[in-house]
Amino acid sequence: MTSQSTINCIITGAGGFVGQALASALLEDPLVSKLTLTDVVEPSSPNRKGQSKVEVRCVKADLTSLETCQTLFTPDLNLIYILHGIMSGQAEANFELGLKVNLDSTRQILDLLRRTNPGVKVIYPSSTAVYGPPATPTTKITEGDTPVPGTSYGAQKHICETLLDDYSRRGFLDGRSLRLPTVTVRPGKPTGAASSFASGIFREPLNGEKAILPVSKDLEVWICSPRTVVKNLILARDIPKEKFPNTRIVNLPGITVTVNEMLEALKAVGGDEALKRVEEQRDEATEKIVLSWPTRFDVSRAKQLGFADDGPLERTLQEYLEDYGAKKQ
Amino acid sequence: MTSQSTINCIITGAGGFVGQALASALLEDPLVSKLTLTDVVEPSSPNRKGQSKVEVRCVKADLTSLETCQTLFTPDLNLIYILHGIMSGQAEANFELGLKVNLDSTRQILDLLRRTNPGVKVIYPSSTAVYGPPATPTTKITEGDTPVPGTSYGAQKHICETLLDDYSRRGFLDGRSLRLPTVTVRPGKPTGAASSFASGIFREPLNGEKAILPVSKDLEVWICSPRTVVKNLILARDIPKEKFPNTRIVNLPGITVTVNEMLEALKAVGGDEALKRVEEQRDEATEKIVLSWPTRFDVSRAKQLGFADDGPLERTLQEYLEDYGAKKQ
Ligand SMILES: NC(=O)c1ccc[n+]([C@@H]2O[C@H](COP(=O)([O-])OP(=O)(O)OC[C@H]3O[C@@H](n4cnc5c(N)ncnc54)[C@H](O)[C@@H]3O)[C@@H](O)[C@H]2O)c1
Ligand SMILES: NC(=O)c1ccc[n+]([C@@H]2O[C@H](COP(=O)([O-])OP(=O)(O)OC[C@H]3O[C@@H](n4cnc5c(N)ncnc54)[C@H](O)[C@@H]3O)[C@@H](O)[C@H]2O)c1
Repeated sequence: MTSQSTINCIITGAGGFVGQALASALLEDPLVSKLTLTDVVEPSSPNRKGQSKVEVRCVKADLTSLETCQTLFTPDLNLIYILHGIMSGQAEANFELGLKVNLDSTRQILDLLRRTNPGVKVIYPSSTAVYGPPATPTTKITEGDTPVPGTSYGAQKHICETLLDDYSRRGFLDGRSLRLPTVTVRPGKPTGAASSFASGIFREPLNGEKAILPVSKDLEVWICSPRTVVKNLILARDIPKEKFPNTRIVNLPGITVTVNEMLEALKAVGGDEALKRVEEQRDEATEKIVLSWPTRFDVSRAKQLGFADDGPLERTLQEYLEDYGAKKQ
Repeated sequence: MTSQSTINCIITGAGGFVGQALASALLEDPLVSKLTLTDVVEPSSPNRKGQSKVEVRCVKADLTSLETCQTLFTPDLNLIYILHGIMSGQAEANFELGLKVNLDSTRQILDLLRRTNPGVKVIYPSSTAVYGPPATPTTKITEGDTPVPGTSYGAQKHICETLLDDYSRRGFLDGRSLRLPTVTVRPGKPTGAASSFASGIFREPLNGEKAILPVSKDLEVWICSPRTVVKNLILARDIPKEKFPNTRIVNLPGITVTVNEMLEALKAVGGDEALKRVEEQRDEATEKIVLSWPTRFDVSRAKQLGFADDGPLERTLQEYLEDYGAKKQ
């Protein structure tokens, strides 16, 4: 531990996809001295790559409990990532659970922190799901466009951004709300999310398995690679708060791709063999949800703040194979 | 009571300015059979003008208490006006109180209603204070522009709109969130609000008293008369929900006037004598807040939905004298 290692960080939802990827990166960060990983499912500490001397603590805890939060969010923490949550499909199917976890437990943590750790840096991943369909499919969305959430998940995310903005304006906390694109390629099993295919049509074929494509090949999506998202979650920590004059909310960079372009990238990396494993099987319900999401963004604000652009799809696929391929998840 | 009198309505914050004006109008509404007026300060029932047979009940109650809300929001109610709240200046000065009343007690009522009165019509006055300053002073704000609240009051209003929108999308409630302009002329005493002068420079001179003008005469404000606001709060009840496809949020009509125009209207109604009672005494703090509010709106959405336009300022002043002048408030 060098003398600069002063960051004592907690990640909630650390057992999840983004949480694990972020933890992995923070383990190699010379500025970090302590890392608490917490999740309602026992989180594991990712393998260390380098000479990491970060002190890691894994805590299984349900953050809907106030007592649990009071124990976890100690005044010595100086960097908070609030990543736990109930994803869009499930929050739509189980409204009470989504409200309790996505809104109430996040609010509870913010209210606790403003008392015990006033001014602490809080990084919160919001989502482009705060937006409803754009005026026209080619309209590029900016932070100036109003969120009209089409799901309870999107509404809950937007409410938390609004709270964190107000708490930051008042100096209670030092928040940053980053609206992430759909993070692709996600390792592991297909999820219930309507966007699940955006990882599945890469992941399964590259693992030698069949994948279902439920939407038209002309359909567009707004995505970002896990490495770029993690990079930006860390950059958010280092951007001075003075750079956010009115709002801490930023639409993060991503790329707009059609399903056709995704399939081309799959072919380039996995060959014809991989491509043949994708089977078209249109599902109107899924297509309807995906079509309601905006897919084009003008991310000048993020670029001005210094956030990183996402790479081309083929690079993302190579990275996927490097980071997750061996594990054959 | 005719056979059409089927509305059993509750107004919260009914002791306040808008609540009293709305109650007064609903007392003359042949569709209304029962009216509950509730406020943390004992609300009084306005004088009846006509043959009103509405059954009125006045209840003093603090709506931050869950038990109190459970007693008040009975399943027989079929129209809910949530008008209680802590206004912008006070919510900025006393953050905990604003959060508790503006956010938590409103949320508590919505959550109670979706269980006991599923699908019930809920009319919620939001505010143009949800917006921060516009891109340029001449930009006309529409519902497509994103709220970036500059006060906790604005943030709390925007969070409640977002919740009510989601509850309405899911069919839990039938909400309508109306963003009111500054309602002018407000009777009674000056308030702590930065916008207080917008009523004071009419009210005090017309009552034979001196008024302080704390801002430049070139400054613009976005205002609406009490009668138009009440008319629109009632119209909101009668617009079919199918007319609100994506969102229940509407920027209500108002008028953009400069202070100079306000002074001209004062002179037209109250003569030179009244005008002379206005004393310029610039206050930079007040001016800064008022300058941060957008003053120009494109209210096409409200007009399409059938909401009423506001009249000219002179008519508003005449109405003020008719409605409140005799009381010399
Ligand atoms: N992955 C994406 O494409 C994407 C896009 C936009 C935003 N986000 C946001 O980023 C964050 C992380 O996303 P992810 O893909 O890693 O999600 P994930 O579902 O993989 O991880 C979320 C984690 O939260 C945990 N959790 C749920 N309820 C909890 C509770 N009561 N207490 C403690 N932990 C609880 C879950 O166990 C899970 O491990 C989420 O807030 C998500 O909304 C993700
Ligand atoms: N007047 C305006 O210019 C304007 C503009 C935009 C929006 N609005 C909104 O319209 C509504 C009515 O405005 P108004 O001008 O009549 O405000 P007001 O301050 O005159 O009335 C609000 C009432 O709420 C009551 N109240 C406060 N805390 C309470 C509690 N815990 N339990 C029960 N009652 C409580 C107060 O006693 C008061 O009578 C408010 O929600 C306000 O935010 C008003």
